[in-house]
Amino acid sequence: MRVAQIPGDQKGQRVNEPHAWTYREAGVDIDAATEGLNRVKPLLKKTFNSRVLTDIGSFGGLFDASFPELSSPVLVSSCDGVGTKLKLAFQTGIHHTVGADLVNHCINDILVQGAVPLFFLDYFATGRMSPDVVSEVIRGMANACLENGVCLIGGETAEMPGMYADGEYDLAGFVVGVADRSRLILGDRIQPGDRVLALPSTGLHTNGYSLAQKIAFEVAGKRPDTFEPALGETIGEALMRVHRCYLEVIRPMLAEDTPIHGLAHITGGGLSDNVPRILPDGCHAVLDVTTWTTPKLFELLVDWGNVPARERYRAFNMGVGFVIVVPEAAVESTCARLRDSGEEPWELGRIEAGAPGVTLVGVD
Amino acid sequence: MRVAQIPGDQKGQRVNEPHAWTYREAGVDIDAATEGLNRVKPLLKKTFNSRVLTDIGSFGGLFDASFPELSSPVLVSSCDGVGTKLKLAFQTGIHHTVGADLVNHCINDILVQGAVPLFFLDYFATGRMSPDVVSEVIRGMANACLENGVCLIGGETAEMPGMYADGEYDLAGFVVGVADRSRLILGDRIQPGDRVLALPSTGLHTNGYSLAQKIAFEVAGKRPDTFEPALGETIGEALMRVHRCYLEVIRPMLAEDTPIHGLAHITGGGLSDNVPRILPDGCHAVLDVTTWTTPKLFELLVDWGNVPARERYRAFNMGVGFVIVVPEAAVESTCARLRDSGEEPWELGRIEAGAPGVTLVGVD
Repeated sequence: MRVAQIPGDQKGQRVNEPHAWTYREAGVDIDAATEGLNRVKPLLKKTFNSRVLTDIGSFGGLFDASFPELSSPVLVSSCDGVGTKLKLAFQTGIHHTVGADLVNHCINDILVQGAVPLFFLDYFATGRMSPDVVSEVIRGMANACLENGVCLIGGETAEMPGMYADGEYDLAGFVVGVADRSRLILGDRIQPGDRVLALPSTGLHTNGYSLAQKIAFEVAGKRPDTFEPALGETIGEALMRVHRCYLEVIRPMLAEDTPIHGLAHITGGGLSDNVPRILPDGCHAVLDVTTWTTPKLFELLVDWGNVPARERYRAFNMGVGFVIVVPEAAVESTCARLRDSGEEPWELGRIEAGAPGVTLVGVD
Repeated sequence: MRVAQIPGDQKGQRVNEPHAWTYREAGVDIDAATEGLNRVKPLLKKTFNSRVLTDIGSFGGLFDASFPELSSPVLVSSCDGVGTKLKLAFQTGIHHTVGADLVNHCINDILVQGAVPLFFLDYFATGRMSPDVVSEVIRGMANACLENGVCLIGGETAEMPGMYADGEYDLAGFVVGVADRSRLILGDRIQPGDRVLALPSTGLHTNGYSLAQKIAFEVAGKRPDTFEPALGETIGEALMRVHRCYLEVIRPMLAEDTPIHGLAHITGGGLSDNVPRILPDGCHAVLDVTTWTTPKLFELLVDWGNVPARERYRAFNMGVGFVIVVPEAAVESTCARLRDSGEEPWELGRIEAGAPGVTLVGVD
């Protein structure tokens, strides 16, 4: 629950009495959380639509679950975090982008099953509540929700003294979406001969940050504010680039009879581990890593860290954010459709008969 | 997402090459998370019912959202954490109870609006993944889900090197339930003359732990393994008592025409701040703190810490875990019903005309 609360009253304490302990003295300042929340309340309300039947601060978030337009509605939900990308927020003092990262990541994770997001809840935990920080993080989440038509209907803001280093926090997000059962995308229609299309990522998204920061800041001795000529920006700017959301581009294709056989969001585990998650028995993906130009940021990281070839495609997305599997006959029309939406898709590989798994041409 | 992944292959590295950095060396050991998860997979599957359309490891959790028995289904969702009760788990090495705490807390938070829980997702974040710890925490969650008929359909297990102290972790839970719109309990039916019934808590539940531990371990100099004669057990045992779930007792009353006007879960903010959350305009709650015997654990804490009277009922539940508002005419039948379920309810106070708020007789 996230609710305004008033701390205890300590007035009237006499001298010579033993010290009277309060919650605030134990490190929990409910006022600070309330102040931070009050700043973003109007923005949170803006994310609501007519399906939200609740007000901020009630025990649970209420969302109308009548789906008369669907013959067999299925809720698709996912939970995720931002990982150690958060450390860049701590170092740079920029806190709204990790909020957007979280929302976009969660939406992508349900989008791959054909679901459009309905509502979102967040968990924010810190050692000492800063109204500035919590309001910035929530602002980032609320704006990303607003952009994607998702209602931010609840959350928990926890102050846990001694659990987090000063100025640090953790963040988790939870999204619920819906799809009609007959339109779920489960990968079961994938078959040998299908083609694998790719959409570019905007950067590391939210994966591989422990390794990336180890390499950039320890091995290569850079700092977040080091300007990197090859990138035309600082390392921090490049690493903090917001995890993009693929909803706007994919959503119209879900509504139509585009023959999408499978979708994969390239998160932790990279191409190597995420593509197999949607492959049915008898289908093997052969992906060619020479079909795109690896973005400079990844090149620098794998070069500085001398990261083994196979490890690169597990720890990082290497420039591929989202994967679409379609029948060969639909490659041209799908790519044209994506280009109409301003995307730059490319053909990454194909599905062959074989055990579920991925062969990376140019690596394996 | 929670998915089995295989770490990169480093074989074949020659001497004299610069060190080849891998994800594992950056502190992320995906094997450890997979091992922990594998231990509980059968238990997770056991929580599934016929509405779950998904397998463990898919991007999103799928749940059938057809509710033919409801005329206007409303999803009720909530997110919560365990707070610094976690520190007791770290100190005692007992990790399944915080998992149960989390599930029960979340269920209670949607139950107060008349919703029965459908499914649950968790977020587990740690600095260094221990298969033993993560599997114990998830075991606790899965068993609590099983007891309450809730499907644990997804979660995120994140290893974030440097974010958490060794052996520590944070935990968040998300629950989604459903209620028919006409049967939502929103407090709007509460009116002057109504009576407030109380159900006992089992302990501190999941609130006030920063203050409780400050008092017990710093002010009073106790340790978790200190045997406390007044309690008949150790301080740690008393403080770690599982946050109870009120679903089993309240659920049958939701299905019938029991005239419940309001329900409140007494969490952070205590009686003082949680009861007002359900009061409509013109209704003031007058609660008498002399109507029950404060459990010994609370007596010790407020005594050792010389906690001011009003602060006690904000920082701690003081023995009241759940509150039920009914019309005066229904007090006897409701109490009889609760007693039949093995509960020991009592009349805590009444609703009077006035501004929304709480007067604590015996304190204010």
